[in-house]
Amino acid sequence: MKSGGTKKLIYLFKQGKADGNAKMLNTLGGKGAHLAEMGRMGIPVPAGFTISTDMCAYYYANKRQMPKTFKNDVRKALTHIEKAMKATFGDPENPLLVSVRSGARKSMPGMMETVLNVGLNNTTRDALIRKTNNPRFVYDTQRRLIQMYADVVMEKAQGIEPEEGKGIRVQLEHILADVKKRRGAHSDTDLTADDLKNIVELYKNKVQEVLGKPFPEDPEEQLMGAIGAVFAAWNGKRAVSYRRIEGIPDEWGTAVNVQAMVYGNKGDTSATGVAFTRNPATGEKIFYGEWLSNAQGEDVVSGSRTPNPINVSGKNEHSHHLKSLEEAMPPVYKQLDAIRTKLEKHYRDMLDIEFTIEDGKLWMLQCRVGKRNGVAAVKIALEMLKEKLITKHEAIMRVTPDQIDELLHPIIDPNEEIKAKPFAKGLPAGPGAASGMVVFNAQDAVNWVKQGKKVILVREETNPEDVEGMRAAEAILTARGGMTSHAALVARGWGKCCVVGASSLEIDYHSRSFHSNGTAVKEGDWLTLNGSKGYVYEGQLPMMRSTKENADFNAFMKLCDDVRRLKIRTNADTPEDAGRAMDFGAEGIGLFRTEHMFYGKNSETPLFILRKMIVSKTQTERQAAVNELFPYVKNDMKQTLAAMKGYPVTIRTLDPPLHEFIPNRPEERQRLAESLGISAEQLNSRADDLHENNPMMGHRGVRLGITYPEITEMQIRAIFEATAELLQEGKKAFPEIMIPVVTVDTELAHQKTIIGRVYHETLKKFGLKKIPHLVGTMIEVPRAAVTADKIAAEAEFFSFGTNDLTQLGFGFSRDDIGTFVPHYVDHKILPVDPFQVLDREGIGWLMQVAILKGRKARPDLKIGICGEHGGEPHSVEFCHQLGLNYVSCSPFRIPIAKLSAAQAVVKEKK
Amino acid sequence: MKSGGTKKLIYLFKQGKADGNAKMLNTLGGKGAHLAEMGRMGIPVPAGFTISTDMCAYYYANKRQMPKTFKNDVRKALTHIEKAMKATFGDPENPLLVSVRSGARKSMPGMMETVLNVGLNNTTRDALIRKTNNPRFVYDTQRRLIQMYADVVMEKAQGIEPEEGKGIRVQLEHILADVKKRRGAHSDTDLTADDLKNIVELYKNKVQEVLGKPFPEDPEEQLMGAIGAVFAAWNGKRAVSYRRIEGIPDEWGTAVNVQAMVYGNKGDTSATGVAFTRNPATGEKIFYGEWLSNAQGEDVVSGSRTPNPINVSGKNEHSHHLKSLEEAMPPVYKQLDAIRTKLEKHYRDMLDIEFTIEDGKLWMLQCRVGKRNGVAAVKIALEMLKEKLITKHEAIMRVTPDQIDELLHPIIDPNEEIKAKPFAKGLPAGPGAASGMVVFNAQDAVNWVKQGKKVILVREETNPEDVEGMRAAEAILTARGGMTSHAALVARGWGKCCVVGASSLEIDYHSRSFHSNGTAVKEGDWLTLNGSKGYVYEGQLPMMRSTKENADFNAFMKLCDDVRRLKIRTNADTPEDAGRAMDFGAEGIGLFRTEHMFYGKNSETPLFILRKMIVSKTQTERQAAVNELFPYVKNDMKQTLAAMKGYPVTIRTLDPPLHEFIPNRPEERQRLAESLGISAEQLNSRADDLHENNPMMGHRGVRLGITYPEITEMQIRAIFEATAELLQEGKKAFPEIMIPVVTVDTELAHQKTIIGRVYHETLKKFGLKKIPHLVGTMIEVPRAAVTADKIAAEAEFFSFGTNDLTQLGFGFSRDDIGTFVPHYVDHKILPVDPFQVLDREGIGWLMQVAILKGRKARPDLKIGICGEHGGEPHSVEFCHQLGLNYVSCSPFRIPIAKLSAAQAVVKEKK
Repeated sequence: MKSGGTKKLIYLFKQGKADGNAKMLNTLGGKGAHLAEMGRMGIPVPAGFTISTDMCAYYYANKRQMPKTFKNDVRKALTHIEKAMKATFGDPENPLLVSVRSGARKSMPGMMETVLNVGLNNTTRDALIRKTNNPRFVYDTQRRLIQMYADVVMEKAQGIEPEEGKGIRVQLEHILADVKKRRGAHSDTDLTADDLKNIVELYKNKVQEVLGKPFPEDPEEQLMGAIGAVFAAWNGKRAVSYRRIEGIPDEWGTAVNVQAMVYGNKGDTSATGVAFTRNPATGEKIFYGEWLSNAQGEDVVSGSRTPNPINVSGKNEHSHHLKSLEEAMPPVYKQLDAIRTKLEKHYRDMLDIEFTIEDGKLWMLQCRVGKRNGVAAVKIALEMLKEKLITKHEAIMRVTPDQIDELLHPIIDPNEEIKAKPFAKGLPAGPGAASGMVVFNAQDAVNWVKQGKKVILVREETNPEDVEGMRAAEAILTARGGMTSHAALVARGWGKCCVVGASSLEIDYHSRSFHSNGTAVKEGDWLTLNGSKGYVYEGQLPMMRSTKENADFNAFMKLCDDVRRLKIRTNADTPEDAGRAMDFGAEGIGLFRTEHMFYGKNSETPLFILRKMIVSKTQTERQAAVNELFPYVKNDMKQTLAAMKGYPVTIRTLDPPLHEFIPNRPEERQRLAESLGISAEQLNSRADDLHENNPMMGHRGVRLGITYPEITEMQIRAIFEATAELLQEGKKAFPEIMIPVVTVDTELAHQKTIIGRVYHETLKKFGLKKIPHLVGTMIEVPRAAVTADKIAAEAEFFSFGTNDLTQLGFGFSRDDIGTFVPHYVDHKILPVDPFQVLDREGIGWLMQVAILKGRKARPDLKIGICGEHGGEPHSVEFCHQLGLNYVSCSPFRIPIAKLSAAQAVVKEKK
Repeated sequence: MKSGGTKKLIYLFKQGKADGNAKMLNTLGGKGAHLAEMGRMGIPVPAGFTISTDMCAYYYANKRQMPKTFKNDVRKALTHIEKAMKATFGDPENPLLVSVRSGARKSMPGMMETVLNVGLNNTTRDALIRKTNNPRFVYDTQRRLIQMYADVVMEKAQGIEPEEGKGIRVQLEHILADVKKRRGAHSDTDLTADDLKNIVELYKNKVQEVLGKPFPEDPEEQLMGAIGAVFAAWNGKRAVSYRRIEGIPDEWGTAVNVQAMVYGNKGDTSATGVAFTRNPATGEKIFYGEWLSNAQGEDVVSGSRTPNPINVSGKNEHSHHLKSLEEAMPPVYKQLDAIRTKLEKHYRDMLDIEFTIEDGKLWMLQCRVGKRNGVAAVKIALEMLKEKLITKHEAIMRVTPDQIDELLHPIIDPNEEIKAKPFAKGLPAGPGAASGMVVFNAQDAVNWVKQGKKVILVREETNPEDVEGMRAAEAILTARGGMTSHAALVARGWGKCCVVGASSLEIDYHSRSFHSNGTAVKEGDWLTLNGSKGYVYEGQLPMMRSTKENADFNAFMKLCDDVRRLKIRTNADTPEDAGRAMDFGAEGIGLFRTEHMFYGKNSETPLFILRKMIVSKTQTERQAAVNELFPYVKNDMKQTLAAMKGYPVTIRTLDPPLHEFIPNRPEERQRLAESLGISAEQLNSRADDLHENNPMMGHRGVRLGITYPEITEMQIRAIFEATAELLQEGKKAFPEIMIPVVTVDTELAHQKTIIGRVYHETLKKFGLKKIPHLVGTMIEVPRAAVTADKIAAEAEFFSFGTNDLTQLGFGFSRDDIGTFVPHYVDHKILPVDPFQVLDREGIGWLMQVAILKGRKARPDLKIGICGEHGGEPHSVEFCHQLGLNYVSCSPFRIPIAKLSAAQAVVKEKK
């Protein structure tokens, strides 16, 4: 590839004109595409150009070298900026300075590199001093350039990995701190122009000393170095690990934006800020943002200064004393608000914007679709739909399944919270509530969580090095930073509970403790955070869920219900579960596991009888246990069927992992032995007989029902009698009898003989003509999937058991994959754990075969899925594409499944 | 269905003419079809007719009733016999008697029922006495009719199941014995006509008394009863259990043959006999048979009298004093020998014939393709090919895989046998040799074998009730009966070692012991039988195999090699195995399991190092063990490759069941711990870590190679260096590197990176340009089968691991199926254990998909199978049909696989 070749590699933009546009995300990255779009819209953006992501690909394909023609092309593009900004790069009289920023297709906050003030050397510095008459500002700017450039370009981009605390950046910071100390300066602003001039020289010496080469004075060398460093940063450690977490492909690469510098730190008529066109935490249609006077952008984002609200309406109890931009610079605020409106109308979405005011002139530096939490996503989607900015289908696509998940996060039980008193308050940066034990660094967070603990990560402020620990923690609490600080951005992206800027916290990392308003907290103490209010409580407060009363949530679910075709059922094992599932809008039970209904009962009796049945050796013993168990089973089935009010209830016949049902405690065993009239030794020997080498592939499911037909018969009788009784009571009930672990059609035929016989016996007993029901099977064994035509001849419905189908299809024992599947995912042998996300290529193919063959043999075959994939968005989408009739998932995943099913319809339309 | 309807239900036959022919097996059963064929050929058969198997189907479909028109049709058919035989059924002057015999599509010796002498009542009896002037013979005949009829028609066919020893047959036998005692008669022949007349009356009274109804005097009623009884016998207990063992479908049904009676027991010019057109034990082209003068057919078959050889050449050390038919009745023998030649030419196969001589006239009663043992089958096929009676393809179809298996049975090491002295001698009725512990009844045989013992069943003579025990036993030894006795027939059918008619045996069932020539043997004592010579030895003699020197065997294998297209490889785990496989004609090794080569070594060192490798916790520990192991692995691979002389050797990389490699003995563990420098507790904890819930689906195969790439690397280096050294020594070597348990294409790609690197390192080290080899994978995981296109992009060959593919495809853990698969097979849920015979419908379908997808992605993909199905005839045939390149099986199965592969070609041609 040549830079002057067929592919355009450099795209110009300025206010009123641009080569690119917002759709060119893949080529220009997010920042570049939106700068171009804003330019086209006539919005004031500093002129600049974007180097395409294709150049990044070239760079990595060619041993990190640019093409030879590249330097010339950049020089040519610079003249465009020079013309627009009326200054010349490297000019000894009227020099132009530029920023060099990354811009990937998807935002990777804090993960990539930026170099500002490129083009400054002693000559241009002096010219600028003459021009601005502000030597202090210019020396400070030069100091910043050296510090940033040495770190990003001369150290990191070269792959130098200094020891902790020995990096050039830290060493330069030490110089700054030394000078401040010597000069008795409290903050940077106390330093004079001469101090800063002195620091510049000290910096240059230190760079030469530490890195073994001089800081480059040639502006062009600076620029080319900075561009290369941005490309290099794409494969930096942090960026790579972030991409892994976020699932961003390595091959996307980054674009580089070279843009005229504008300064928010030139004095009181300069400022910088970050804003959202609507409130990203609540979704309210209120302009929401933060700003700092006489500051550069990084000051807002880094959290090193707590910023002011952008407008009066944004003030709260923490910020009511701070001056808003609306008050400080009314005309500029008005201009900004107009741009906000223009942008929202144009983009038809809530946006996140960055701006700088230089000497009273407003410049827009960035705009992009704004991250929002679940609550806000739902409200924004609904309101924009009401405003007719977007369509119903678009509204559905505006909320991600993760955001719905977030809404389902627990909150503190309001009745309890009202009695509790927060000992610290901060900004409500991440939704929901969480409890955990305090840790003070990211590594501890990771380690503690590995040990099975729940933690809350407490930091002064966070930075990208903390990401892993933040991920592991239940919640994050920081003492500094605003709603756009690193911690807030990251937590919001994940929908994780987070409180930032809780300034009363006095953290002592050394003693691993903090104080706040007289309360002392040390490592390991429990805290509870309310991330929606910003409150911090001692101890563990009780949690609850609260989507039921949320009108927006319900309205949004209604939208999904209108659009989706896939039915959503739930997996429920008790009448109580069934009731809960109805509250969540379940359209039936897709999996009722008989063997689970015995757990968590007040009475131990049914579980005890079940155990007796399992350790029975003779048919007589077993039949006795079966008879004893019958009334319990029938009662539970009746209650469950009643709770579902005529919605289908798929009852899976017994599929117990035999050995798990043997009690371990000697007294329990003794009791069991006594009730069977055998010795403890005999019982132990029977328990040993039940041991299997690979129980997953052992004597289970229908295999039990065939070898012990009396067990099947009891369950079938319970189902039919329960239904018959409900019908006689004038109630509705619709059982679907599901036979598990079927491998061969003859297994199902065998069980159907029993079902048919018991059905007719029940009809006779109750004097009924008909008991509505279906008989079907799970498809969870590969052989069943590939012989689905034969099986469909016996089955009225299929339900994919994708957990087992994945186990057998992959040959992965779910209990044992810990030794290799995480390694596989880390090393990209697998894109993702197939038990989390349904594997379309292999397991999906088997499902397709089963559907095709099954529907060929029985065109009206009802097909669903009851594996855990039924509540996972990608898998739900795939189920829709496969033409399934329903998915079944755990009650709390129902809203997510509904959204995913609706989105699948929208995507299909595209 | 009406018997006079569209389907012909009754087929007539007589000498010179017949409705049916030999091809109508399905309709007429074996006996009926061949009687018709012989009739057509002009061979003297008593006239008769066959009632089609369709009538049997009708009978069972209509509550065991015949159609109304049936009686008339039978009456009409009888006139055909009457005309031919010049006698009339039920006629008071010149009565015709008939036999009523079953005749299924496939012979079920002794399992079905026969009623002889039908048509005899007091009136016809008296007429016959007048006609024959032989009252003693006629009364005896009547006595036999009553005894047989009461048993078969009046008791068994009615479903009456009397207690042991209370059946009508036994009760009538008691009467006979009583009379003999009273009359001082030693044998039946000592009884006078009056005695027998008296017995007839006593019989009739007993029948009335026991069965509650009179013996029917009406000939027609007798006939219809007998026909119905034969149909009823099809579903008798014994017949059903025999069909299950032999795999005969229930729906085939039986035909019924009604045929004029001829008598071999009319005096010294009458006789009966059974013969084979060639020797069924050796295959020699010598007329071979046995006969008894003045006897009925059942006397020969039942073994109640030891018969004479049919000709001089058939005499042996046991029978040299007995008169042959050739000597006793030269003209009849000559006629019989001519018929023998005619039949063999006509049928182009060795036949089993039955004949009766009545008053000097020869009648043929049956002919069918003769059962033969493996040795005979091979010789007959080869000789008939030489005689140009059959083609090469026919010759190949004349030997079953089971017969080849039989040839591979062990014999007694000749060097040892020469020193041993048999303490009993009998007839060599079943091939090969066997050792076992003596039991005296079938039930004990079954029970002892269940306890893991090897038994030899010793009986006076066997009967159909003994079949299960005969099946279970290693060998059968009887004191009575000839080469066509029940024991001999059954044992020959199964290729089981058997000695019959060892008349020196004095068996005492009561004390569970026997004596022979002064030697006392009691239950549980060990015997060794030479079934090819008829010798019985005390104790256990050492065994060996001896196909190598068998010229017929080798010639027959050559025939198979000429015809088959499928290559036959072997599974071998050591250089020694490899050598043995070459002797068997292996065309490569299809599976060399690295982890198996450490067993059975003189030195324990490699196994110990392997264990060390497995319990290693850190990469450093593991690498050290791997390095230590390398020379052993390389050495074994080199020897194996050398032994195979350039034939491909498929080396599977390590797939150890981890936990199995942990020693159990504390001192072994201690040693292991010491060599790793860890404590015994630490070692135990590591061993615990290796425990898996479902090890079959755990951390194994390629999963190990990916998480511990150093293990893969060591093996690959061993393979390449071993090959390189052989090449430098001027030898041939061709390794095929096979990666096991691949689920995803990326796994294979990962391992190929290692293989590629080590390959180039080895080329460099040895200064070679090329080391011939292939890299491929096992297809043993369902997901791999269905994504075979992707996997074929990485693999140069596939080898189906059908053991695991069956495990995962069925979800059947091979170690755990004992609890339900036998039940499944018994109850016809599965036709057969899928680990024995490849399941075509499910697993076969997955294989087809893999082949289709694999060859689409890589047209020259080499495909084989290395599961145990590779040596099972049905599965080999299926592999041929699928278009596989080769099957791989255990060395001793190679000849079977070769034959099956050749037969697959022949069947395909048809």
